[in-house]
Amino acid sequence: MTDFAALHQADTPLLLPNAWDFASAAALHAAGFPAIGTSSLGVAATHGLPDGHGRTRAETLALARSLSRLPCPVTVDIEAGFSDDPGEVADLAAELHHLGIAGINLEDSRPGQDRLADPSDHAELVEAVKTRAPGLFVNARTDTHWLNDNPPPLTEVLDRARQYVGAGADCVFVPGLTDPTDIAALAGGIPVPINILYSPGLDLTELGVGRVSLGSLLFRAALHAATGLARTIRAGEPIPEGIPGYRDIERLIPLTP
Amino acid sequence: MTDFAALHQADTPLLLPNAWDFASAAALHAAGFPAIGTSSLGVAATHGLPDGHGRTRAETLALARSLSRLPCPVTVDIEAGFSDDPGEVADLAAELHHLGIAGINLEDSRPGQDRLADPSDHAELVEAVKTRAPGLFVNARTDTHWLNDNPPPLTEVLDRARQYVGAGADCVFVPGLTDPTDIAALAGGIPVPINILYSPGLDLTELGVGRVSLGSLLFRAALHAATGLARTIRAGEPIPEGIPGYRDIERLIPLTP
Repeated sequence: MTDFAALHQADTPLLLPNAWDFASAAALHAAGFPAIGTSSLGVAATHGLPDGHGRTRAETLALARSLSRLPCPVTVDIEAGFSDDPGEVADLAAELHHLGIAGINLEDSRPGQDRLADPSDHAELVEAVKTRAPGLFVNARTDTHWLNDNPPPLTEVLDRARQYVGAGADCVFVPGLTDPTDIAALAGGIPVPINILYSPGLDLTELGVGRVSLGSLLFRAALHAATGLARTIRAGEPIPEGIPGYRDIERLIPLTP
Repeated sequence: MTDFAALHQADTPLLLPNAWDFASAAALHAAGFPAIGTSSLGVAATHGLPDGHGRTRAETLALARSLSRLPCPVTVDIEAGFSDDPGEVADLAAELHHLGIAGINLEDSRPGQDRLADPSDHAELVEAVKTRAPGLFVNARTDTHWLNDNPPPLTEVLDRARQYVGAGADCVFVPGLTDPTDIAALAGGIPVPINILYSPGLDLTELGVGRVSLGSLLFRAALHAATGLARTIRAGEPIPEGIPGYRDIERLIPLTP
């Protein structure tokens, strides 16, 4: 088991903060988080591109290359793999693993169509990736509760999860699943850890969850802080204390790549 | 006079927030700022590169290309031009202007050497840029008060500023200049607007300043907010209200570039 996989087996869930660029990842690592993820919304938005449209393959790969320099496991959100061809998705996964990336998220919604893939098609993607890069930790994401205001019954989630696990997935991620009973049933119903999005007030430690992701929350909070501070200054009001200085940020960045 | 130049001639200084990626620029534009700058520290750090080392030409140009889609003037920090060759710096400036970028910052410190260029050499860069791209608003930055804990007397700043203005600079930027008497003397001593970094408690409106930049402050505040929120969640504490949602961020990003 890799160090990254082991983090999903601890007594408390792995709290995974999602970065969107090198600086945010380095700052989160410096804050003591043992592993760092990426936010596909964050990566897309920083480049002026829409999320979930399969348009950020190059940007995601460039970010992964820089994040591979961090001395901690990094997992990269590759949306649906940026291709319908399992061979091309496996190529990307192998390249990421070769860079030293510990894991990926691979989702079963398909770009721009607001629809879920047939689970057997998505299982085929997962299998292609795990065959080419067996040591890469694959977090298979199902968007049953992300795209739909009226999500399907948990039996469909379990059916998808089991097909992805059968194809080799190391973890199953269901963003938008917030019902404690459903979460516990999913955690108990498949033989790999499950990953849930952080939700205020939900105690995920008690529910058998292996990983809690912050998704795009930190990215959104960062943008909110920047615009809020700019408005404060425009209003002539005093600014908050504690903002790091220029040298503090410089220290996060290695001088030689 | 361009719209962007006119913003430096108003009764109150142009308050210029500095972005570091498309999302931060779009969010600041949406917050009602009439023009957007970039932070070279922010751009470098987001890519895991050091600031002021002349290593972010490609990243700066790619960002400029995306920012040129914003419906407001954008000015781009190009450090010292990413080259010692005035022709190459002029090429970059012309390319930026062709993209629709309204202005640039061009600094007289030189990459990685913590030293100031000879002012006549820097004036040559300014002149090369203004000859090739006369409509581009050139903010000539002197780092007399940025690199040095013991800055030179104001006479040296004035001498540099006058050489840059003589070469065609549209504005002169002195980051680190905070003494109100010096600021007023500089503003009164050259025939173009001056640009000063925001400094808490300093009323720059009274001192004849044309532009107040926020430099890397918003970028640093954004990182600080992200790590602070991650720590709050790790501690099991309640998170602040008001963070924008996924759809709020999506709305900042055009679906078609």
